[in-house]
Amino acid sequence: MSTATATSPTFIRSDYVVLGGGALAVVLAGIAHYAGWGEVMPFVLSALAVTLLASLVGRSVEQLGDRFGPGATGVLQSALGNLPELFIALFALKAGLIEVVQAALIGSILANLLLVMGLAFVVGGLKHGHQKLDSQRARTIATLMLVSVVALVLPSLASYVHTPAAAHEKALSMIVSVALLVLFVLSLPASLRKGSTGLSDEMVHEAPRWPIALAVGLLSVAAIAAAFVSDWFVSALEPAMASFGISDAFAGLVIVAIAGNAIENVVGVQLAARNQSEYAFSVVINSPLQIALVLAPLLVILSQVFGFAALTLVFPPMLVVAVFLAVLIAVVITVDGESNWLEGAALIGVYVVVAASFWWG
Amino acid sequence: MSTATATSPTFIRSDYVVLGGGALAVVLAGIAHYAGWGEVMPFVLSALAVTLLASLVGRSVEQLGDRFGPGATGVLQSALGNLPELFIALFALKAGLIEVVQAALIGSILANLLLVMGLAFVVGGLKHGHQKLDSQRARTIATLMLVSVVALVLPSLASYVHTPAAAHEKALSMIVSVALLVLFVLSLPASLRKGSTGLSDEMVHEAPRWPIALAVGLLSVAAIAAAFVSDWFVSALEPAMASFGISDAFAGLVIVAIAGNAIENVVGVQLAARNQSEYAFSVVINSPLQIALVLAPLLVILSQVFGFAALTLVFPPMLVVAVFLAVLIAVVITVDGESNWLEGAALIGVYVVVAASFWWG
Amino acid sequence: MSTATATSPTFIRSDYVVLGGGALAVVLAGIAHYAGWGEVMPFVLSALAVTLLASLVGRSVEQLGDRFGPGATGVLQSALGNLPELFIALFALKAGLIEVVQAALIGSILANLLLVMGLAFVVGGLKHGHQKLDSQRARTIATLMLVSVVALVLPSLASYVHTPAAAHEKALSMIVSVALLVLFVLSLPASLRKGSTGLSDEMVHEAPRWPIALAVGLLSVAAIAAAFVSDWFVSALEPAMASFGISDAFAGLVIVAIAGNAIENVVGVQLAARNQSEYAFSVVINSPLQIALVLAPLLVILSQVFGFAALTLVFPPMLVVAVFLAVLIAVVITVDGESNWLEGAALIGVYVVVAASFWWG
Repeated sequence: MSTATATSPTFIRSDYVVLGGGALAVVLAGIAHYAGWGEVMPFVLSALAVTLLASLVGRSVEQLGDRFGPGATGVLQSALGNLPELFIALFALKAGLIEVVQAALIGSILANLLLVMGLAFVVGGLKHGHQKLDSQRARTIATLMLVSVVALVLPSLASYVHTPAAAHEKALSMIVSVALLVLFVLSLPASLRKGSTGLSDEMVHEAPRWPIALAVGLLSVAAIAAAFVSDWFVSALEPAMASFGISDAFAGLVIVAIAGNAIENVVGVQLAARNQSEYAFSVVINSPLQIALVLAPLLVILSQVFGFAALTLVFPPMLVVAVFLAVLIAVVITVDGESNWLEGAALIGVYVVVAASFWWG
Repeated sequence: MSTATATSPTFIRSDYVVLGGGALAVVLAGIAHYAGWGEVMPFVLSALAVTLLASLVGRSVEQLGDRFGPGATGVLQSALGNLPELFIALFALKAGLIEVVQAALIGSILANLLLVMGLAFVVGGLKHGHQKLDSQRARTIATLMLVSVVALVLPSLASYVHTPAAAHEKALSMIVSVALLVLFVLSLPASLRKGSTGLSDEMVHEAPRWPIALAVGLLSVAAIAAAFVSDWFVSALEPAMASFGISDAFAGLVIVAIAGNAIENVVGVQLAARNQSEYAFSVVINSPLQIALVLAPLLVILSQVFGFAALTLVFPPMLVVAVFLAVLIAVVITVDGESNWLEGAALIGVYVVVAASFWWG
Repeated sequence: MSTATATSPTFIRSDYVVLGGGALAVVLAGIAHYAGWGEVMPFVLSALAVTLLASLVGRSVEQLGDRFGPGATGVLQSALGNLPELFIALFALKAGLIEVVQAALIGSILANLLLVMGLAFVVGGLKHGHQKLDSQRARTIATLMLVSVVALVLPSLASYVHTPAAAHEKALSMIVSVALLVLFVLSLPASLRKGSTGLSDEMVHEAPRWPIALAVGLLSVAAIAAAFVSDWFVSALEPAMASFGISDAFAGLVIVAIAGNAIENVVGVQLAARNQSEYAFSVVINSPLQIALVLAPLLVILSQVFGFAALTLVFPPMLVVAVFLAVLIAVVITVDGESNWLEGAALIGVYVVVAASFWWG
């Protein structure tokens, strides 16, 4: 691995884009927020700033993780990678926007399983024909995805059809959240042993280029900035949606979900384009798995600890229907063992149809 | 391919049966319709005539398609093979029988996925033991089947549980229909390249025996006759069902569905009997795929264009439940990779149970 | 097979435990029942006696079956292995406890598919790493499991959403029960040919040690005792649940289900611990398959023949949701082809969450 020794620069070109663009976007978003630049500009600028900060957090974690071996990167990514989404959701809960948060959680899962996986299949399939997906690891992730989504939607189903449990939706949501977090903790040893889930290490990690102090510093700065920007993003969200005439559900399901996962998504599609289909699949399906295993249960618990608007796992029924069908399709496609561009187009089609059904608020 | 040169006759025995029997059935059905031969005879005769005309359309398309290469046959079959079903559905919509059309669409999917696939497994399994189904192509068709059925039932689910979209069921049905037709058009290049979906060409096509003018002529005559006979069939349907004491839902789900697919179904079972299990599976699952991808969306669009009783994709819930479970079972059996007669018996059992649950109107 | 000749003792140590402990438990349970030892002791003692009698029936059947070849054992096990559960359910129906019986039927399926399979995966995975599950036979059983659960829940779904059939739930339940029993009878030849479903014979059966008269005698005694003890168990159930403050649904779903399957469950986990993962999987999934194919339909028919509280297959919706999701997960894990301890932990987590959602009566 002599390719990445002293001769490699600390920053590569894309680092400058993320750092410079991120700083600029944060500053502009702050000005737009405090100066009150209408309804649309604060939203667009803070969305851009969140996206770039998410990317910066990801890069810092990756540079940092390599010091402790590849396994630690997986754990750190699990712990910190969804930090911006966590901040956004917490501020949105503080503002009482429960429906937006629920829609954004499910929407992130849908966007990854349908839209991003569909794009990855189309791009990969058009460039390279049939692509294989048949690693056992991919199938295990898909199985875990199904199991955690089933657990995630059980309180909803109990609430719809089982009157006695409906009166205890907070308690049942807490039980499910604890079970999901326990499952996440149990999955850590596998991550620590084998690198971030499903990824062979050479493909994932470039050699560390940032000194450890720089990585820690940038991570801290990015995290603090993310906290502020998330606040601005959430307070800009409602007026912007109102001015676009977009419903809360659609905003959470499509706009927040795509903004919050933009960078990871690009990575998945790029990997498929390079014919690393197994790896692309792992990246694409690992993100919704973390939402179901960590982010959603953490938000349920934190919202009750902090006394915010209490998030429960009783989602509006259409979200439950959509996420169940999406995970079913994703599992069938994984077990099927191959992907092609037509399956990708079908996934994108399902995403469009699902999004359309939420268009009317 | 010298087996099919000048020495081969233009018509083989089964052609004579279809042509002669079809002509006779059309004439008798016409007389029964205009002379008003009670409630049962017009129905039986027009059902027989529709079945024979469907077979004649299929034969003409096959003879014709070979002139343009095997791929074109697939496209022509997609475009024209469901012509009689299309006519029946349009006349039924004109007569306001929306529930019958919806039940017939779902019923055709169910009959193929459960009854015909079950019969093919039983016949093939009893004759040849375990049969393999593990081609990648079969799995891709099954995946597309799942995806298109999910898209097809989304407007129903949205309408049941998501109040805002329920008020826009026509618009949502149109969006889904366009998405499904786009998916169908995207699937055409694969069909054009590799012959009708999933079929190796030698097995499917006999060498052309009919001169091109004869094939075009017979196709035109059959199509025109199908239009008339469909009208008679639809107007005979309601009185016949009333005299048998059969509900609209059961009539569409079982009787129209089986009559409309009779010939294709026999082919699938015959292929399984000859141990061509992959091919039999492709034939059996390709038919409901075309109903979901082409026929149903086309009917939604045409019913609004022609101003007939507006067909939407908001089906009665039990139809949605049944088709979802049927496609799930079909996908699991395909991914499972083998069939045996016990799985076939299980499929037939599910069909019987589903049909029974619609017996009471 | 000279290991099991005249030198092998008639009784091995575990036989003494089952025989002695069983006799003692039956006597004590009888005394507790007739003497009225409070609310808890009759329940605990009769539950223990039922468990030990179930084990004794299983042992007798196994010793007996070997005389007629391994295939007959499978049939005998199907016919007699669920005898204690059948008695309990009949007495419970006689006592009008329909909800308990329905919950116990679904609960037995859930306990096997989620809890026991999860424990088997965890134990096997921790001891032996990834374990393979890819026999075609396992996949066929899983497919049959899906098909029979779909048939089993169809009357429920029809009743929830399809008004006309809802008025005929008894008739529809009878039709489904007959279809399931026919499917069971059709599956017998395969069992007779290949031993009890899915098991290679060397692994399953020890050589017969009991003389045939002893086996028949113990089976008869155990069956008669089971009939009495089941009566005591059912009459102790309600007061005990009341004193524990446990709802009917939870009692049936968790307590009756686990007590009724305790011994079989231990066997499945032990086999996984010995790295016989295919065999463990077959044992674990074969038990719920028999509940769906034989026990549930038999109870529906017998309850109407005997004029007890009529059991129908219209279950409370949450039971339907739970069993459908459980069988879906079990099928995906089987088709996935491998198990590991993390998947096992996930299954246990789903079981805990499902049980929790029934905690509140």
